[in-house]
Amino acid sequence: MARPVRLFESSIPSGNAYKVSLMLSHLGIAIPHVQLDILAKPSETRRPEFLARNPNGRIPLLELDDGTHLPESNAILCFLADGTEYMPADPLVRARALSWMFFEQYSHEPYVAVLKFWTLYGGLHNKRPDEIALWKERGHAALGVMAGHLANHAWFTGEKYGIADIALFAYTQSAAQVGFDVPPIIDQWLGRVRAQPGYIAIKS
Amino acid sequence: MARPVRLFESSIPSGNAYKVSLMLSHLGIAIPHVQLDILAKPSETRRPEFLARNPNGRIPLLELDDGTHLPESNAILCFLADGTEYMPADPLVRARALSWMFFEQYSHEPYVAVLKFWTLYGGLHNKRPDEIALWKERGHAALGVMAGHLANHAWFTGEKYGIADIALFAYTQSAAQVGFDVPPIIDQWLGRVRAQPGYIAIKS
Repeated sequence: MARPVRLFESSIPSGNAYKVSLMLSHLGIAIPHVQLDILAKPSETRRPEFLARNPNGRIPLLELDDGTHLPESNAILCFLADGTEYMPADPLVRARALSWMFFEQYSHEPYVAVLKFWTLYGGLHNKRPDEIALWKERGHAALGVMAGHLANHAWFTGEKYGIADIALFAYTQSAAQVGFDVPPIIDQWLGRVRAQPGYIAIKS
Repeated sequence: MARPVRLFESSIPSGNAYKVSLMLSHLGIAIPHVQLDILAKPSETRRPEFLARNPNGRIPLLELDDGTHLPESNAILCFLADGTEYMPADPLVRARALSWMFFEQYSHEPYVAVLKFWTLYGGLHNKRPDEIALWKERGHAALGVMAGHLANHAWFTGEKYGIADIALFAYTQSAAQVGFDVPPIIDQWLGRVRAQPGYIAIKS
């Protein structure tokens, strides 16, 4: 079984890379982190040396002891969590957790994370008002779906904290900071995540 | 173990719903399909009756015999394929397949599928030229990453055809039709998918 040896991440805080750091912390796995400058022109993730590791030019990227690499934050979470308490053993519960993780990448991250990036690094003032309004609307829609689930459930990974909670926590924790109205029920869940053994805060 | 009893899909061909139909066909599972009009105003997927089934208002949606529902096409594939030849048993091979499925939803579908929708149903002429150019560039980038992988591998699901191939086939099969340059190596892979036992074509 291949073991993780190194994590490629960005030099500015990235929720997608943070997911992996949080999972590694929960599992007590300490590996070196390699930081790449994604604000450089071109980004260090789009240069030949990195593209040889991940042709899609994205971080986070996990290097394994067989010399291969695994991209996609949520796939990395699944790999690391496999066989641990953070990954449901029941196939349907596991599929529901994956469902939240695909929701995160399709309906949540492209709005909440992208608006965060625009706000902190990307020149929000260069975006058109209708674009910002649409991103806000879609981000709020995603938060609304999460709040609806939390009305009847404590977690997004079946009955326990796990992979889907880690995936959704990464950018939801920053939603209020970039101007989203975050319902109290989501704030309470954020607090439950922060109370988990091995929790580490995102670098800022 | 909950069993699938019904699939909610759109009345116009959807690659995301097709993925599930293809998987069901491979597995020899026949269940009723319920078609929703997503071009209606409001879309039938955004009306209270459907939102009660999937608060995120998206198809495909799998109904199970316990009365619950499972959203997200790629999570549905994982659920149906669990324990079959279409899902790798090895954790790392499975994680690599998941990695391609997250790639599909984040780096491929939002460009190739969305351009397909604009072209066929959404009024491509209402989009700004720079928007169309960006979507084309990103779709081509995704196809380039796929072609790079196929230079050294026959499939996206480890050594065999499986869940990640089904996920990527769904919209890649329409890429040429909506104006993308599809490399021959991808065409050859599309042909290998079409030759699989139980293959069914997307409705058109």
